[in-house]
Amino acid sequence: MDINERALGLGSKRSVIRELFEYGKKRKAEIGADKVFDFSLGNPSVNPPEKVQETLKSLLLTYDPMALHGYTSAQGDLSTRTAVANALNKLCDFEISPNLIYMTCGAAASLTVSLKAIINKGDECVVFAPFFTEYRVFIENAEGEVVVSNPDEKTFQIDFDDLTSKITEKTKAVIINSPNNPSGVVYTVETIKKLSDILRSKSEQIGHTIFLISDEPYRELVYNGQKVPFVMNYYDNSIVCYSYSKSLSLPGERIGYIAVSPKSNEVSKLYNAVCGAGRSLGFVCAPSLFQKLIADCADLTVDITAYKENRDILYENLTAYGYKCVKPDGAFYLLVNCFGLDAIEFSEKAKQHEILVVPCDDFGIKGYVRIAYCVSKDTIVNSLHAFRALAKEFI
Amino acid sequence: MDINERALGLGSKRSVIRELFEYGKKRKAEIGADKVFDFSLGNPSVNPPEKVQETLKSLLLTYDPMALHGYTSAQGDLSTRTAVANALNKLCDFEISPNLIYMTCGAAASLTVSLKAIINKGDECVVFAPFFTEYRVFIENAEGEVVVSNPDEKTFQIDFDDLTSKITEKTKAVIINSPNNPSGVVYTVETIKKLSDILRSKSEQIGHTIFLISDEPYRELVYNGQKVPFVMNYYDNSIVCYSYSKSLSLPGERIGYIAVSPKSNEVSKLYNAVCGAGRSLGFVCAPSLFQKLIADCADLTVDITAYKENRDILYENLTAYGYKCVKPDGAFYLLVNCFGLDAIEFSEKAKQHEILVVPCDDFGIKGYVRIAYCVSKDTIVNSLHAFRALAKEFI
Repeated sequence: MDINERALGLGSKRSVIRELFEYGKKRKAEIGADKVFDFSLGNPSVNPPEKVQETLKSLLLTYDPMALHGYTSAQGDLSTRTAVANALNKLCDFEISPNLIYMTCGAAASLTVSLKAIINKGDECVVFAPFFTEYRVFIENAEGEVVVSNPDEKTFQIDFDDLTSKITEKTKAVIINSPNNPSGVVYTVETIKKLSDILRSKSEQIGHTIFLISDEPYRELVYNGQKVPFVMNYYDNSIVCYSYSKSLSLPGERIGYIAVSPKSNEVSKLYNAVCGAGRSLGFVCAPSLFQKLIADCADLTVDITAYKENRDILYENLTAYGYKCVKPDGAFYLLVNCFGLDAIEFSEKAKQHEILVVPCDDFGIKGYVRIAYCVSKDTIVNSLHAFRALAKEFI
Repeated sequence: MDINERALGLGSKRSVIRELFEYGKKRKAEIGADKVFDFSLGNPSVNPPEKVQETLKSLLLTYDPMALHGYTSAQGDLSTRTAVANALNKLCDFEISPNLIYMTCGAAASLTVSLKAIINKGDECVVFAPFFTEYRVFIENAEGEVVVSNPDEKTFQIDFDDLTSKITEKTKAVIINSPNNPSGVVYTVETIKKLSDILRSKSEQIGHTIFLISDEPYRELVYNGQKVPFVMNYYDNSIVCYSYSKSLSLPGERIGYIAVSPKSNEVSKLYNAVCGAGRSLGFVCAPSLFQKLIADCADLTVDITAYKENRDILYENLTAYGYKCVKPDGAFYLLVNCFGLDAIEFSEKAKQHEILVVPCDDFGIKGYVRIAYCVSKDTIVNSLHAFRALAKEFI
């Protein structure tokens, strides 16, 4: 073969989400955009905070263009890293230095760099179903092996017996994602504590560190005043992967970071490995204009009222129609049970009602679809009769 | 070991360039910025074209923020890829479709993605000394082996006998970089033609395609009205890696592209492999604001008058003082022979004259230093007496 087979495989197979999205575009052109209830994509549907646009304009008007668009240091501008560290220190029981922050081109980069920093060929990385489909791609990019731990399907918290049985001498890391894509579930403090206990005792047992990678782009998208437990307060060997895609509604701008816990074993080696992995993958110096934006806006969050309203309308009505789903506390996803049907078949049936929902087989869980409710309230309200009609096919 | 050794190694060793730059900052604080002649970094020293700043402002003022900052398709917005294809079609004897363009986060990403798309473990990739130091890192990231071909040191064009001897059955690609960092040399049409002939005949001989990867962020930075030969016109299996860092003076914004030649063997597979490699490494959807900028500004180039003036002053004076260097036709680098001295020792001696120049050992060539003349004219003019004094130590 002339080219790389794995790259070819990854590039040839379109993701289910992308397929649905393309179908949706076509269908909207056929019957009108307002007739298609497209819940396929996790693209934010609320504007960035006003200060974001104001800061960008002001940077363009007042800053020297060469300094504004120039290279920053590989790990990011000190002023940006300081702003990130200051924001994290509000969540943290101890202090995180800017020198443990590595600015990245978004969440995907945060994960590929973190994994590359710690994984050696054949190391295992545990993911918790349902999990973001690309975790598999990123772990395999670092030559690691994916091990899937199944959830407690009542709550979608971690099934600790299952997790314990999945940890082996090769386990190098676990990845959590809370609030979760695709379930919207937020891990409780009890879950994080118990997970930490298990990782500590297993690390000791197998004789090397198991890292906790916390992928948390939805950290601020939580409802009912709940707070997402900050992992570094519970587990020393933790790495936080973040992106401003959702919290500032800037998904296309590719700006995020990696934060290494100062309590990690051999922390400076770990941070250096992150820098080295970034260099190896070609991720040095995250986009500079947006770094300078973050220096000013690291503390902001979009107005999540619209997401909460969407969630409430959908959850109340869908459960009333007979759908089974865990009430999501965060993110903008609802995971819905397919009445015992195969998820791909169910998604096809939904299409007949002009509803586009993502079958979750690729997220490591059978019999569920994901509803991304980051859409207009009108779409939510207008879709209800279709959801009702769909449910009636099963009840 | 708990973490990845290679990543740790790459992150622990600071590059020579970065070391010098940090030394320069310290030294400037000690004796004054105007007393230190810092030629260490290849950071553009001319402003972006005015239209760049105007377009950015106008996008922020007129565009819907969610559309402006939202996800684009993984390979980039069609309007952006169309603008890139149109710009390339002016250089090309045939037509390149937007569907063969993949937008990236800059030159490093263009290279890591391209290499990952074609290299299988153990494949060899030829680089031509002197070469940008990170090529080694990127090739090894794709599990390839670096093979260095030595130049004809009179002209710094390719030494074809050397190249021919370096191609084996494992050769998968060669990387060229013209205008070159660190020599400033532009490959002639004759060089590109002869290279293409050799690659064609060797591909046939070894029974698989050898790809020509052309890394050309300095494409537009050429003097004397010269044009850089566009590789796709000469060799079918070519991949162009580009970044707007230099042509638009936007190095920190991480915006570039990969263009696959439509004449490549199995071109759709090759393009899919590029998409898959981007997905694997975490590079999908290049920064969206800057994609939209490129849709409007793909054809622009910074005013290179200042670079040319710097080159002329430096070259004329340095050769008059006795330095030996090939006159650079492009980029903003001058490669200077160290009077037979070891380059690191020479760079140390230069420091005593407050001149900061990069020893080129890591670029795969002994006995040379690189002068990055992307500095103010004042720095150039004021440095001349120091260069003269330095030369007098040897002549």
